[in-house]
Amino acid sequence: MNQFEKKTFPIKELPSGDHLNLTIYRVKGDKPGPHVHIQSSVHGAELQGNLVIMEMLRYLQKNPINGSMTLIPLANPQATNTKFGTTTQGRFNPITGNNWNRNYTDISSKIDYKTFLDKNIQLEWKDLKTEFKKEIFNQCNFELNSNDFSIHSSENKKLNLILQKIASTADIILDLHTGPKACRYLYSAEYQKTQAKDLYAPYTIIIPNEFAGAMDEACFMPWVNLHKHLTEQDIDIDPDVFSFTVELGNEEEASSIDAINDCKRILKFLHAQKVVNEKPVLNEQQQFWSELSNYHSYYSPCGGLFEPKVKPGEQFEIGDILANIHCPRKIMNLDAIEEAVISIKAVHNAALINHTPTTAIGEGMEMIQVLADLKRWD
Amino acid sequence: MNQFEKKTFPIKELPSGDHLNLTIYRVKGDKPGPHVHIQSSVHGAELQGNLVIMEMLRYLQKNPINGSMTLIPLANPQATNTKFGTTTQGRFNPITGNNWNRNYTDISSKIDYKTFLDKNIQLEWKDLKTEFKKEIFNQCNFELNSNDFSIHSSENKKLNLILQKIASTADIILDLHTGPKACRYLYSAEYQKTQAKDLYAPYTIIIPNEFAGAMDEACFMPWVNLHKHLTEQDIDIDPDVFSFTVELGNEEEASSIDAINDCKRILKFLHAQKVVNEKPVLNEQQQFWSELSNYHSYYSPCGGLFEPKVKPGEQFEIGDILANIHCPRKIMNLDAIEEAVISIKAVHNAALINHTPTTAIGEGMEMIQVLADLKRWD
Amino acid sequence: MNQFEKKTFPIKELPSGDHLNLTIYRVKGDKPGPHVHIQSSVHGAELQGNLVIMEMLRYLQKNPINGSMTLIPLANPQATNTKFGTTTQGRFNPITGNNWNRNYTDISSKIDYKTFLDKNIQLEWKDLKTEFKKEIFNQCNFELNSNDFSIHSSENKKLNLILQKIASTADIILDLHTGPKACRYLYSAEYQKTQAKDLYAPYTIIIPNEFAGAMDEACFMPWVNLHKHLTEQDIDIDPDVFSFTVELGNEEEASSIDAINDCKRILKFLHAQKVVNEKPVLNEQQQFWSELSNYHSYYSPCGGLFEPKVKPGEQFEIGDILANIHCPRKIMNLDAIEEAVISIKAVHNAALINHTPTTAIGEGMEMIQVLADLKRWD
Amino acid sequence: MNQFEKKTFPIKELPSGDHLNLTIYRVKGDKPGPHVHIQSSVHGAELQGNLVIMEMLRYLQKNPINGSMTLIPLANPQATNTKFGTTTQGRFNPITGNNWNRNYTDISSKIDYKTFLDKNIQLEWKDLKTEFKKEIFNQCNFELNSNDFSIHSSENKKLNLILQKIASTADIILDLHTGPKACRYLYSAEYQKTQAKDLYAPYTIIIPNEFAGAMDEACFMPWVNLHKHLTEQDIDIDPDVFSFTVELGNEEEASSIDAINDCKRILKFLHAQKVVNEKPVLNEQQQFWSELSNYHSYYSPCGGLFEPKVKPGEQFEIGDILANIHCPRKIMNLDAIEEAVISIKAVHNAALINHTPTTAIGEGMEMIQVLADLKRWD
Repeated sequence: MNQFEKKTFPIKELPSGDHLNLTIYRVKGDKPGPHVHIQSSVHGAELQGNLVIMEMLRYLQKNPINGSMTLIPLANPQATNTKFGTTTQGRFNPITGNNWNRNYTDISSKIDYKTFLDKNIQLEWKDLKTEFKKEIFNQCNFELNSNDFSIHSSENKKLNLILQKIASTADIILDLHTGPKACRYLYSAEYQKTQAKDLYAPYTIIIPNEFAGAMDEACFMPWVNLHKHLTEQDIDIDPDVFSFTVELGNEEEASSIDAINDCKRILKFLHAQKVVNEKPVLNEQQQFWSELSNYHSYYSPCGGLFEPKVKPGEQFEIGDILANIHCPRKIMNLDAIEEAVISIKAVHNAALINHTPTTAIGEGMEMIQVLADLKRWD
Repeated sequence: MNQFEKKTFPIKELPSGDHLNLTIYRVKGDKPGPHVHIQSSVHGAELQGNLVIMEMLRYLQKNPINGSMTLIPLANPQATNTKFGTTTQGRFNPITGNNWNRNYTDISSKIDYKTFLDKNIQLEWKDLKTEFKKEIFNQCNFELNSNDFSIHSSENKKLNLILQKIASTADIILDLHTGPKACRYLYSAEYQKTQAKDLYAPYTIIIPNEFAGAMDEACFMPWVNLHKHLTEQDIDIDPDVFSFTVELGNEEEASSIDAINDCKRILKFLHAQKVVNEKPVLNEQQQFWSELSNYHSYYSPCGGLFEPKVKPGEQFEIGDILANIHCPRKIMNLDAIEEAVISIKAVHNAALINHTPTTAIGEGMEMIQVLADLKRWD
Repeated sequence: MNQFEKKTFPIKELPSGDHLNLTIYRVKGDKPGPHVHIQSSVHGAELQGNLVIMEMLRYLQKNPINGSMTLIPLANPQATNTKFGTTTQGRFNPITGNNWNRNYTDISSKIDYKTFLDKNIQLEWKDLKTEFKKEIFNQCNFELNSNDFSIHSSENKKLNLILQKIASTADIILDLHTGPKACRYLYSAEYQKTQAKDLYAPYTIIIPNEFAGAMDEACFMPWVNLHKHLTEQDIDIDPDVFSFTVELGNEEEASSIDAINDCKRILKFLHAQKVVNEKPVLNEQQQFWSELSNYHSYYSPCGGLFEPKVKPGEQFEIGDILANIHCPRKIMNLDAIEEAVISIKAVHNAALINHTPTTAIGEGMEMIQVLADLKRWD
Repeated sequence: MNQFEKKTFPIKELPSGDHLNLTIYRVKGDKPGPHVHIQSSVHGAELQGNLVIMEMLRYLQKNPINGSMTLIPLANPQATNTKFGTTTQGRFNPITGNNWNRNYTDISSKIDYKTFLDKNIQLEWKDLKTEFKKEIFNQCNFELNSNDFSIHSSENKKLNLILQKIASTADIILDLHTGPKACRYLYSAEYQKTQAKDLYAPYTIIIPNEFAGAMDEACFMPWVNLHKHLTEQDIDIDPDVFSFTVELGNEEEASSIDAINDCKRILKFLHAQKVVNEKPVLNEQQQFWSELSNYHSYYSPCGGLFEPKVKPGEQFEIGDILANIHCPRKIMNLDAIEEAVISIKAVHNAALINHTPTTAIGEGMEMIQVLADLKRWD
């Protein structure tokens, strides 16, 4: 059966001298296969992924896998512990304002591809891959240990780099997030669009093969660039390292029932990647995708009270009312009450992916995000 | 038809020199009758009441009333504007930590009942009432204008006192709040328990006739004490000034559909008080009440992820599971996953009134509030 | 020489599953004598006391004492770790708004003095004291362990009760705080006014022998009430358990040079109490005191930029300018610039004890606290 | 004499329906000359610039200028009003985490230089400049008014764009900021290094001629690029539009005495630019500069209490102790107290430009910023 190992180590000393820790579960299957890295809650209020990891462990308790798995729940303890009032503000570092998922290091840009390939190009892909994982690991280590780091690291770069380093040995990286109030959806890089479908999200946003600070990008960019260098040398290999941001509904929510289904969708992907043997049974659903350039935000034209009229996951047409903004202090007389209700109308044919969790909304605040120009996956 | 008047005036100058304002709607009916004061959002994230006020204005547009009404939506603009991250922290002053609904002044304790009654005891109750309203008004004014105030007022005492002063002329005061994640319920003082039933809340918490800093108490205590002094002089008059805190579901929520029903429940009360002529049609429901001493909080025994298993408004028995706390980092091995799920069991036969809106929960954080020893109203 | 012991134990589990801990240093002298309890940073940004505790340990390294000492630096780790932006918001619980130094339990009110004295009145004072310390300790323990507590404890009551319990065995309790921008000063209960002088603060505020939620009060109230009951039985004993709140300058400041002097002032007190043998040499200074009723706050009459004109510790007369509020957006024309500068004039002959650490100040915000009707100690 | 005009208009509607406003003072001299734009407090806690603007108005009251001036105090009211606890968190948007001075629009990249020059190249520089200012103004307007904006603008882009638009007509732009705890210093783009010296800052950081989101860059980049295009067409004109970020000491501080000197330094620059006739008298001081690549941050290696040992503005050598971190809970025994004090030693020969305003410091928090490889200006 699968072997289980648990490791806990400090990742941040607080002003009080107490420590925040990372806990890593490692599960090793009976047979060889890909290494899977799953982490959750880099944004502190995005918690559903932790129940999915617990559900995955329940699966692993009973089902031997091919390969191995690293599971990191509550990967950013500082973020999950940050509260002002009863809710969690886990999106950005409360000291610096830095978005916790935009602080990864561009390890890809630090790799000397030419030197690496000069040395390893004769290897078979399987061995080349092993060597390249080591290269990524070493670059992470170098950044973590350089004198430079101790002087120049930003507030939370250390945590991010440690997560990157841990993920450097993986073939499959799943970074579990949620939206504010959101449907299930997925971010996939262009190059892994085919595989993305197996994650069985109702909506997939295709992002460019580029680095913009996020975990998924930090993990796939070295492979994207390796592939580019190999192609330049007329070596044609399908990249088979995959890295996704998986969005699992609402922040500040933990549903153990939904977690069963969320876990099944991941298992469907892992089945396609031959990590698990059983094909999970999932309810049928339609799947849509579109490019990041079709992902649009609607900002509030005024201050007031936001009431959504379309639910996350629902599709609508241009002119449909997406939400009303109630402005209770703008009523001028009893015959003009409705003038204090501002309707937000769609300017796209699209699906509503997520909306803000707040009702008190100021002018210019992000209300709604929609995905337009939807293409159906069959 | 009803006459409408709108008044807006500054209540706080911000550091930038900009002003926060109060907007007051006054509606006067054709015929004489009680004066009704309705305000909402003294806690800044408790927003549903504003839609109820808008709904009430829609009613007033078409239906003449007996008496008059003061409606103050968004009565605490500073609180509704306070955000850290996307949600609203509107429960306490972000500078001082003071709960916005515990800062009212104990006007009752500043009234010289003996002198007042020496002068007015010969009046009929109707006229005595008018004189006593003036007395409350004058005491509020005195506090607001005293030299002492300019030096000694706490951060938000001014706003509270202004609200008290505006409400001093009312016969019926409704302070619209919400819970965190909550059912509809009501706080009623002991003395007005009979009338409370007309507000048609599924649950009513009976509080003592005492002052503890809240708006409802600040408004009813002068009348409670007046009644006590009258009784001492063997004058037996049923007090007919009423003041309630009305709880309207979840914070950070604005439902215009629910607002229609919430408004109807208030109209039912106003019908009983002869302010409105039509009796609104409401779905039948059971109503329960219990004393404040039966209102219990459950605090988290550990840190983890809170998943409620009983919904606000539902009743349960001792031993029932109210919630699970998932502790994703406490799994010791694959055979012991369920040990990382802590069940919170009921120690009362009760109804769940509200639970926390957060999922990330620390040891000692308030999770759940229940009302036990329920009595049915028939 | 003195014996040293260190103890660390968890006091709060965070949502992430990590723990905040208390660290307690215990130092035992060669000879018997009073037990001293010193804690710092219950308000998280009030940090100077920690350096004073480190300085005290340096003293204890070299100088044997009579009796023993408990030293708890950073006694409220959650508070010291709470930041929004670069500075520390350590005054109130960020989830509930509760002031961290108003949450102690009124243990005094839970003691049955009659039963206790019936049983112990025949004891000598020294032994009675030992028994009464046990009584306080047991009451704290009872509160901590009651079923009731697990259900009804507020967010941070546990920490407060643990600190009370630890302090229950002490004869001398010093709770080290700071003001916002403040001079050195002291809170002393009426009954221990004579001893207060030995703490050598330039200003002492005499508070009533009453409980209002703070640590010093929570610790002295059982002894105040014991003394009252003894007096009723015609037993005349000078109370010799002392509990003070010691204010050590500015929050968000740590000066190791000032800590040397702050420590000396405490040693002067401990010398008078026969805990230390050497009398520390201190620069001469004048000492003033006044009653809490003479401690006045000045609140801002407008929004603007606060510039203090009197420093903490300085004395002034009625009419003196204490501060200017600059209102840069209120200039109406080039000839009226000075009208945009509002002068705050003293309405007391007093000393400025502290002023706000912020410059951006809203209407009604506390600016300045002064102590009037100063009496000189000679 | 100078003419004065005041204009106030709303820039943001709050959830409550209240408005935050901008106030703009415009002063026009008797004679023609450059137009000067001075704004302060885009970072909300950086307040000294407002007193400098008030001081500048006092100067303008008495001294006619050549040209005109726009003065915008408290240019970001939302930021100055943002508090959690008593201090101001004005560095980033509390909802999004976005740094308020990294949200300007790259107007430069939206200008079609080729088309503009095709049309205007024959003009004299004076007239070309006027036309190009119009071009910048129109681009800002276009961004503000595009349909796209109403849907796609980020939370505070509107404020930034309005400030850019107002500044588009200026020849000299001064954006007044402060550090956390800082000396006076200056950011200057490479191309305006000669002029920078006249602002008489003790330290100047030379930044590349590039856009990274800040106001100074947003204002100078169109001119840098215009110059580049002119040079390509062999037209050699010295750029004479200047844009600086001026750092005026500590945040959360307002010193009217320092403001007199800060204003004089600006007047010295304006004298060199022929806006004012009198040369202000300033105390002599040394001036140093270095490139941005020599500006280094020191991050804390641990959690603890930060005590700086070098003051802002002071210079030091490699190995000097810049600060101590006291770790009061790390003392293992009475003989090892000093091991709980971590010294931060310089790894540069440099000047300390600023340090954190907090004492409670977590691992990885930015403590100190230094400017190395100093060059002396003579």
